[in-house]
Amino acid sequence: MKVLALSGSLRAASINSALLRAAARLAPPKIEVGVFRGLGALPLFNPDLEADLPPPVAAFHAEVAGCDALLVASPEYAHGVTGTIKNALDWLVSFEPFIEKPVAVLNASPRAHHADDALRETLKTMSAVIVEEASVSISLLGAHLDEEGMVAHPAVARAIRAALAALHDAVMLRHSGPGPSFPLP
Amino acid sequence: MKVLALSGSLRAASINSALLRAAARLAPPKIEVGVFRGLGALPLFNPDLEADLPPPVAAFHAEVAGCDALLVASPEYAHGVTGTIKNALDWLVSFEPFIEKPVAVLNASPRAHHADDALRETLKTMSAVIVEEASVSISLLGAHLDEEGMVAHPAVARAIRAALAALHDAVMLRHSGPGPSFPLP
Repeated sequence: MKVLALSGSLRAASINSALLRAAARLAPPKIEVGVFRGLGALPLFNPDLEADLPPPVAAFHAEVAGCDALLVASPEYAHGVTGTIKNALDWLVSFEPFIEKPVAVLNASPRAHHADDALRETLKTMSAVIVEEASVSISLLGAHLDEEGMVAHPAVARAIRAALAALHDAVMLRHSGPGPSFPLP
Repeated sequence: MKVLALSGSLRAASINSALLRAAARLAPPKIEVGVFRGLGALPLFNPDLEADLPPPVAAFHAEVAGCDALLVASPEYAHGVTGTIKNALDWLVSFEPFIEKPVAVLNASPRAHHADDALRETLKTMSAVIVEEASVSISLLGAHLDEEGMVAHPAVARAIRAALAALHDAVMLRHSGPGPSFPLP
């Protein structure tokens, strides 16, 4: 299973980015988590460009089309989503492979709810499938953990592993299709 | 009075951008409305860049510092703010001249409320002063009016002029300072 991880922060020391890198390291062999590094290179969304996509957007689309699920972690800026994560989603609004894509929304600062609420509203409007069991809250703000610290922290590592397992189950369920049919003789 | 107008859409045929250009044409001589053209050139917000601002951000900051008020018009994308307008605001979060700046939020599609609500929440969190009397709703979605059409449409032109007059009053009130003091003899 391939998971594409998107961080809504471009800050080098971002705890959301660190959380996603920790998830990539903690993932079991059956789950490949790739942290997308190109969100900062996306141009600001412009519908006029959709007919002839800029190369960074085309690369982003290819990654989204090629993954089984998305893992999103994004901070809250001024009681709102970050421009970076919303811009990335704006480029996916009319992108057909995104529809019904399973998405887990991690929340590293559970006391903040505006951005989390807004992100979920947008994802639902875009017909993504939010996997609630995989959308865990982990109180990392103020915990002073970097990627290494998260991997080494038993409770944090457990929460990340649980989120990935739940995301895996949701993807498997989605791929399993309908059960066998038993026509009457 | 100088008003800086920000459109949350980069689309050439954007009704929000047309609305702001119409406002610039309808403004009386005492109000100068300048539509900012550089939002699409702003890099995605990165706190690591704040110590040495990229030139497009420095130019944006200078425009914001030099205006008396802001006029914002932005569409709703997938039940959320546009990445473009939120990214612009992200660059203003810790910019001191933005604090207590009078802002009018125009809404060209009153049936949509998610983006309008989120924009107001963010502006309040950033300590802007939302001028309610100037934050008018004008049902332009589906009205098929371009900039010329808006300028020529009596009801639309009246709404725009009323918004500008209210914004002017709010700025004058802000600049007037306290009334005279009457010390007892």
